Amino acid sequence: MLVVMRHNATEEQISAVVDTIEDMGYGARPIPGGQRTAVGLIGNDGGVDSARLEVLSGVLEVIPVTHAYKQVSREWKEDDTVITLPNGTVVGGSDLVLMAGPCAVEGEAAIVDIAHVLRDMGATILRGGAFKPRTSPYSFQGLGLEGLKYLARAREETGMMVVTEALDPDGADLVAEYADVIQIGARNMQNYPLLRRAGRSGKPVLLKRGMSATIEEFLLAAEYIIAEGNDEVILCERGVRSFAKHTRNLLDLAAIPVVQSLSHLPIIADPSHGTGLRSKVIPMARAAVAAGAHGLMIEVHADPPQAMSDGAQSLYPQQFAELMEQIRVIAKAIDRDLTPPLRPTVPAGS
Amino acid sequence: MLVVMRHNATEEQISAVVDTIEDMGYGARPIPGGQRTAVGLIGNDGGVDSARLEVLSGVLEVIPVTHAYKQVSREWKEDDTVITLPNGTVVGGSDLVLMAGPCAVEGEAAIVDIAHVLRDMGATILRGGAFKPRTSPYSFQGLGLEGLKYLARAREETGMMVVTEALDPDGADLVAEYADVIQIGARNMQNYPLLRRAGRSGKPVLLKRGMSATIEEFLLAAEYIIAEGNDEVILCERGVRSFAKHTRNLLDLAAIPVVQSLSHLPIIADPSHGTGLRSKVIPMARAAVAAGAHGLMIEVHADPPQAMSDGAQSLYPQQFAELMEQIRVIAKAIDRDLTPPLRPTVPAGS
Amino acid sequence: MLVVMRHNATEEQISAVVDTIEDMGYGARPIPGGQRTAVGLIGNDGGVDSARLEVLSGVLEVIPVTHAYKQVSREWKEDDTVITLPNGTVVGGSDLVLMAGPCAVEGEAAIVDIAHVLRDMGATILRGGAFKPRTSPYSFQGLGLEGLKYLARAREETGMMVVTEALDPDGADLVAEYADVIQIGARNMQNYPLLRRAGRSGKPVLLKRGMSATIEEFLLAAEYIIAEGNDEVILCERGVRSFAKHTRNLLDLAAIPVVQSLSHLPIIADPSHGTGLRSKVIPMARAAVAAGAHGLMIEVHADPPQAMSDGAQSLYPQQFAELMEQIRVIAKAIDRDLTPPLRPTVPAGS
Amino acid sequence: MLVVMRHNATEEQISAVVDTIEDMGYGARPIPGGQRTAVGLIGNDGGVDSARLEVLSGVLEVIPVTHAYKQVSREWKEDDTVITLPNGTVVGGSDLVLMAGPCAVEGEAAIVDIAHVLRDMGATILRGGAFKPRTSPYSFQGLGLEGLKYLARAREETGMMVVTEALDPDGADLVAEYADVIQIGARNMQNYPLLRRAGRSGKPVLLKRGMSATIEEFLLAAEYIIAEGNDEVILCERGVRSFAKHTRNLLDLAAIPVVQSLSHLPIIADPSHGTGLRSKVIPMARAAVAAGAHGLMIEVHADPPQAMSDGAQSLYPQQFAELMEQIRVIAKAIDRDLTPPLRPTVPAGS
Repeated sequence: MLVVMRHNATEEQISAVVDTIEDMGYGARPIPGGQRTAVGLIGNDGGVDSARLEVLSGVLEVIPVTHAYKQVSREWKEDDTVITLPNGTVVGGSDLVLMAGPCAVEGEAAIVDIAHVLRDMGATILRGGAFKPRTSPYSFQGLGLEGLKYLARAREETGMMVVTEALDPDGADLVAEYADVIQIGARNMQNYPLLRRAGRSGKPVLLKRGMSATIEEFLLAAEYIIAEGNDEVILCERGVRSFAKHTRNLLDLAAIPVVQSLSHLPIIADPSHGTGLRSKVIPMARAAVAAGAHGLMIEVHADPPQAMSDGAQSLYPQQFAELMEQIRVIAKAIDRDLTPPLRPTVPAGS
Repeated sequence: MLVVMRHNATEEQISAVVDTIEDMGYGARPIPGGQRTAVGLIGNDGGVDSARLEVLSGVLEVIPVTHAYKQVSREWKEDDTVITLPNGTVVGGSDLVLMAGPCAVEGEAAIVDIAHVLRDMGATILRGGAFKPRTSPYSFQGLGLEGLKYLARAREETGMMVVTEALDPDGADLVAEYADVIQIGARNMQNYPLLRRAGRSGKPVLLKRGMSATIEEFLLAAEYIIAEGNDEVILCERGVRSFAKHTRNLLDLAAIPVVQSLSHLPIIADPSHGTGLRSKVIPMARAAVAAGAHGLMIEVHADPPQAMSDGAQSLYPQQFAELMEQIRVIAKAIDRDLTPPLRPTVPAGS
Repeated sequence: MLVVMRHNATEEQISAVVDTIEDMGYGARPIPGGQRTAVGLIGNDGGVDSARLEVLSGVLEVIPVTHAYKQVSREWKEDDTVITLPNGTVVGGSDLVLMAGPCAVEGEAAIVDIAHVLRDMGATILRGGAFKPRTSPYSFQGLGLEGLKYLARAREETGMMVVTEALDPDGADLVAEYADVIQIGARNMQNYPLLRRAGRSGKPVLLKRGMSATIEEFLLAAEYIIAEGNDEVILCERGVRSFAKHTRNLLDLAAIPVVQSLSHLPIIADPSHGTGLRSKVIPMARAAVAAGAHGLMIEVHADPPQAMSDGAQSLYPQQFAELMEQIRVIAKAIDRDLTPPLRPTVPAGS
Repeated sequence: MLVVMRHNATEEQISAVVDTIEDMGYGARPIPGGQRTAVGLIGNDGGVDSARLEVLSGVLEVIPVTHAYKQVSREWKEDDTVITLPNGTVVGGSDLVLMAGPCAVEGEAAIVDIAHVLRDMGATILRGGAFKPRTSPYSFQGLGLEGLKYLARAREETGMMVVTEALDPDGADLVAEYADVIQIGARNMQNYPLLRRAGRSGKPVLLKRGMSATIEEFLLAAEYIIAEGNDEVILCERGVRSFAKHTRNLLDLAAIPVVQSLSHLPIIADPSHGTGLRSKVIPMARAAVAAGAHGLMIEVHADPPQAMSDGAQSLYPQQFAELMEQIRVIAKAIDRDLTPPLRPTVPAGS
């Protein structure tokens, strides 16, 4: 931590800063400059309260040097975190992971059918919302527990893993019972009781970046989960708020290599929410792979115009197949490959 | 809802749009233009799914006309909502309401003492966090239930009302038991299970605007509360995210008159979080009153440099007293007055 | 400047940083910390190129301590800059300055007439665009030189000072010939050849904050003008871009006290462009005064619905008169007053 | 254009809107709705002044339907604009165009040497600033005319085309004399006199997106150039302002397919300014190609730590060579190829 003094700060003011720092139990080292003096705080363990220094007279500003996150950082753990799911899908390794499915689970037949289609096209994780956070209280809110059961049925039939969203702590327990990965949505990135419960669930957690979260806040949200003893966290860039409205959100693909520098956690991209427009999902999905994402989460619906939510951003199955072909080529440019497809499950008794 | 066609849309494409609208049970009215034709959808009850129209060929864009919120709107209820609290404080009337107190409840004596000071200066509602949402899992998270009890004790001693934050649905029940107003923080503005539970609590709810919430989203979050049968919602502008970092958030004071045009709900301002800098709290508090806010929520601490959180944005009590003098003058410019001060409570038995 | 090392930086890497700093002609002082070491650079004269340090191995980041601006800063000049215009209006003193007029000069009679009205209501500076920067090449672009002549005529008749915008270096010379204050618009805040020419014009310059300019960039743009020897710069907050669209721009009133802390230059607010909505201009004008602005720039048109540009944000003259009454009260709360009105000019020969 | 009435608008108010529209010379068609009535304006030629309608009583809002840009739109010209430069480089076709070079021209030998290196690696257009727009007046501002001459010398020696920035109208004439493509920087995107002069220069123009420009504003800025009779405009996405600071700007890659839908003009990406960090330039350059950009503009310096500006975002030549290999693979995924390399120029007389 660096305490920057005003250019006309007196020797007494500088001494008072030094004394206060020492009084707080740290070391202080003045750094005289051409325009002003700064005082370095030595031995910061992450617990220094800068407010005590900001208020001293003659102080211009206090600049933090230490980041607040710990266990998510690459300094804490140098090697990439690699998460292996029960069906063999590896998140965080060199293979690209494809998560696909409808925005919401709309019925048993619908989710089982689309799962078969997507599995055969190469996706290994099925997405689909049972609990839907909707901006309006009057919009469709999901099938709830029934939806979870349909997802479990689709897993049973296809071998795909299931990722679905939890909206509150009790919901996290329920989702953990039926799904393979618990999703925390963008609106809930700083819902700390939910993060904590998900961290204690024993299941990997997919954490979406908040609407206007900085990378530091994003990593600190993951830190809440890890602090509960669960280090199987998958981060997801899904676009942020901006002044521009040509896409629903502004997909911040640079966040991918930035997170990969700072943290050992895997990070995927969601170009469906990241653009909100079907015709822009494919180019941005390609771009996310080229930027180095560990995987993609894509909304696909058998008949998007009839979807109960987010139809305008859902791909037709055939488009998903075309996307798979394109990203197979792009992945090669950076020495990656797609996750091997699941073998069709053999019906029991055959 | 207006379906805008591409400039080279064919007659067949326009007819298909008309047919689809009629098939959905609404009326359709083509509006030929110099550059392109648009088709108006007649009879929208708020439930039209625009995705079905966006995907039709020849369609350029679909423009919504109807807002998604209902009960929060001034069209639904023309007169201002006025909320009267047990100690006589009226929120939403012509008197300015002052909510003040420390960021966090730090101990029984501390909260009771500052409550006395603030009550005597004219505040009638005491703020103070018992459950603190903190960006880092390693920061002080509040005293929890103990904190609620201390707040209740301060109310008993001073006659002030208590507003404090709930972080999850179960917490909302607990807060409702001890406090007079349940606060929903910015991070939880779209935490729907929490909004719903607060809506069923029987207590007024103070809803803070999310970090990057539009006015429409802000009002829809309030709609979640009202939809549970609770129309005592107090909105709070507390600054939004922006590219600029000279203040912690960018206090959007224009949101105050904008919300007042669109909704009947009262709206106050929080210049403490809105700036994050003690020296900027007072000018922005004055500005909020001049912009027409129904009240202010201000962080005040007996000794800000020693505060356990947000010390840098907390006023000294003396500054709060000076602010009261200034806003008393400003309020007059727009025919408002300050809420009458509470009479000192008479000790029992005297 | 502070060079922060990675937590696992070696002694050799730290030594290399020290050597490089000394090689650049500055002093270096290592500051060991609990998590990592930082190296302070001593004697920075503002000319250190941080890129040479950022690229050294083991370096995590380089944090600047010195601001890039000099002559605009309050450290350079402690006392407020006060600008006295030929008609006695003082910008930057304790009196509020009112600049008012139509968006564009539309004709001689129109500008002279509205000037009389505004002068009689208490405004002392007349605004009106002769050269209009318009987003579309097909919109009305202003009357040009004719417009300047009409403004000069209005000054002659009313005694008001004239402020009007210049769009390019040659235009700045022309505007300087006819106007009393040269305006640089938001789109041109970083048009450096224009800033330089305005700086050499011998006339005060009104500099509007750019659409998404930080305070540092805003002050550096002013520094371009001052660096040419002209320190009569009036800053103007006029709203910034944000994700929210309920107002045309987001008026950042906290920028007013922030600029006043950092710089000696006067700063006014433009709530007309800051909101874009007539009904929000008045509350935000009041708020700007309460926040401590040195003045206001307000669009007023005799008949807004017929205005050739920005009609939706222009006040009716009567509204301007009401605003004057309100801000007269608010100004008192912070020990300010309105600029004394100009006496009606006595027709020559009477 | 659609005029949306308040839900309680009277028949008289609706009639007044209809009458006003007809009085303006257009047709009006009321569209009754469940919640409110809207009135469609028929026959809009792009010149309707919405302010006259917004102010009528009972009107809630006026929604524009027609875009303000014309000649840049794909509706105006369906086929892609393809620009062929004198050395055979085609911008806007199926081949990817590589523009590379240092931020600033620093000397004759330096620019000629790096041009040879980049030409041999496959770049066909040389970038380098002779006039540098710098945030601080005290930073290096470029070599000016000398710099232009050195660029011309590099072209002569290597056969590469030259793109360099102009800062004001007179500068545009000068740049047009020496360079093959005139660059308009982000700060000048709405510098209309400069856009106009560049539009009359007879040379292709590279227009960078402004710091916080919407796509509509970006296209309207291009419209200024085309309106002067020059339709050889190359658009460039270079990142926008956002709340997040992990990269210098937020590279908005979705803007690429969005612009390609709306306009016939070619669009390239500048990941150097788009990220500001050398280590993030390569992943984002790959991503831009995958998103469908027509080309890239990349800063490369022989020795970045010694660069006079933007060293932290400049690639080493060897990194540029590696990038070329990666994007060659990615381009194939979308049926593109790299522009064929220039043949080494044969020295005259050999």
